[in-house]
Amino acid sequence: MSLQTDVVRNNDGAEVRLFTSPSEFRAGCRSGELQMITRNQCPGYVQAAMVALPKALAFDFMLFCQRNQRACPILEVIEPGQYEAKRSAPGSDVRTDMPLCSVYRNGERVEDVPDATTVWRDDLVTFLIGSNTSCDLALQRAGVQTQRYRWPLVTTIPTEPAGKFHGPLVVTMRWLTPQELIIATQLTSRFPFNHGAPIHVGDPSVLGCDLEHPLTGSPPPPVPQGLIPTFWACSVTPHLTAIAAKIDFMITSVPTYGLITDVESDKICIP
Amino acid sequence: MSLQTDVVRNNDGAEVRLFTSPSEFRAGCRSGELQMITRNQCPGYVQAAMVALPKALAFDFMLFCQRNQRACPILEVIEPGQYEAKRSAPGSDVRTDMPLCSVYRNGERVEDVPDATTVWRDDLVTFLIGSNTSCDLALQRAGVQTQRYRWPLVTTIPTEPAGKFHGPLVVTMRWLTPQELIIATQLTSRFPFNHGAPIHVGDPSVLGCDLEHPLTGSPPPPVPQGLIPTFWACSVTPHLTAIAAKIDFMITSVPTYGLITDVESDKICIP
Repeated sequence: MSLQTDVVRNNDGAEVRLFTSPSEFRAGCRSGELQMITRNQCPGYVQAAMVALPKALAFDFMLFCQRNQRACPILEVIEPGQYEAKRSAPGSDVRTDMPLCSVYRNGERVEDVPDATTVWRDDLVTFLIGSNTSCDLALQRAGVQTQRYRWPLVTTIPTEPAGKFHGPLVVTMRWLTPQELIIATQLTSRFPFNHGAPIHVGDPSVLGCDLEHPLTGSPPPPVPQGLIPTFWACSVTPHLTAIAAKIDFMITSVPTYGLITDVESDKICIP
Repeated sequence: MSLQTDVVRNNDGAEVRLFTSPSEFRAGCRSGELQMITRNQCPGYVQAAMVALPKALAFDFMLFCQRNQRACPILEVIEPGQYEAKRSAPGSDVRTDMPLCSVYRNGERVEDVPDATTVWRDDLVTFLIGSNTSCDLALQRAGVQTQRYRWPLVTTIPTEPAGKFHGPLVVTMRWLTPQELIIATQLTSRFPFNHGAPIHVGDPSVLGCDLEHPLTGSPPPPVPQGLIPTFWACSVTPHLTAIAAKIDFMITSVPTYGLITDVESDKICIP
């Protein structure tokens, strides 16, 4: 398969291959060819985290998302027996079109699979939830760097519960210059379906951030002079919530391995 | 009862008594003292339309709202057995705190009541949905008139269905000057929980508007020279949808008689 890619250089000068077509990227996941993290791929398209859980719990989970919209902006809900994200990614199959899915049984993550077809159940309702990554191209165009200085962190801020769903708010911390902070606040305010504006600026301890255990990568070093920690609600929040509810059976995307949709981020932002 | 009011003059020079405190207004509804339409009352506070329906239909109705967010922005969901809008109107009782509710049985509107306490059922899930009226103070402050030239109209645009819920989009048509149109587009874009930006400008026939039968008031006259019809999604949409579903039992607010919440419109708008 020959896929459309751009080749760019990262901050260290190394060449990075960037896929540009969401449908081709999804096809590459489906064939097993692509198993990379999705952050930075197909810039300018909305990426979604996935939580698929039994229909009996779907109302309470949707209510949880409604009560915690900043962290859990629902892009699309796929009804039981269906696997295609008809609205945001026509032709997709959410069982196969992400690089990796996690399977949970009785609240335990039992395996990560590139293809969830054989374990899928027809009573699953699938929620697709917007991601910070969706705003990266808009930020880059405005001169805000998005590659470095970025950590997903668990906080001690409680979400508002619904039914058995509860848990802490998860945030994305980025370190920005004062000018980047101002631009990033303006710009991300326009993307309410991808977490919107920052929720905090400055001291991470105000949110009770667990800096020792970021959800991906190493703990952050001391903040460089002149950079300001800036915090956005993060779509790992609904993941952790669903895990904390100890559901009998659930399938989720793996954080940083999302579904790349056909929705252009600029098309669902506020003017 | 002595209530806080402002006295203003309307376009015809007549004095109009405007209540300013949402909690006092709700108390006046509860006591039976107030039975006026809520539009223009308590300016600057979010007003909500209400749909209360049986729990068994709540997931599908919430999914309908998610799929038609511009028309059905959910402000709060009140769980079965509860009547207080804890988040948006602490101390309220949605059974009594609107001037008038409609009771539907087997899809028929059987009565309008100022107090729904005796007919309420404990399996009802209550949805509160944002209203265009919530943006009026912001528009007035910016010089956009909001009293005249305003009609709720049924269109031929279909909403996206969910379960048994389906029906046409309802819009609010306002006639604005070109300058008002520009300012109103900018301003209302900031209020996504109260229908956000216009969905159309100009020819009503593009939306298939039923100009002969506005949902309140008389049919609009010919458009005066220099004014431009401008259209917003309207919270009567979920009402009509719930009615079209011919639900066994349902209680709704009456259009233009909403729940006035304690939420300041400016506090839930995009910066």
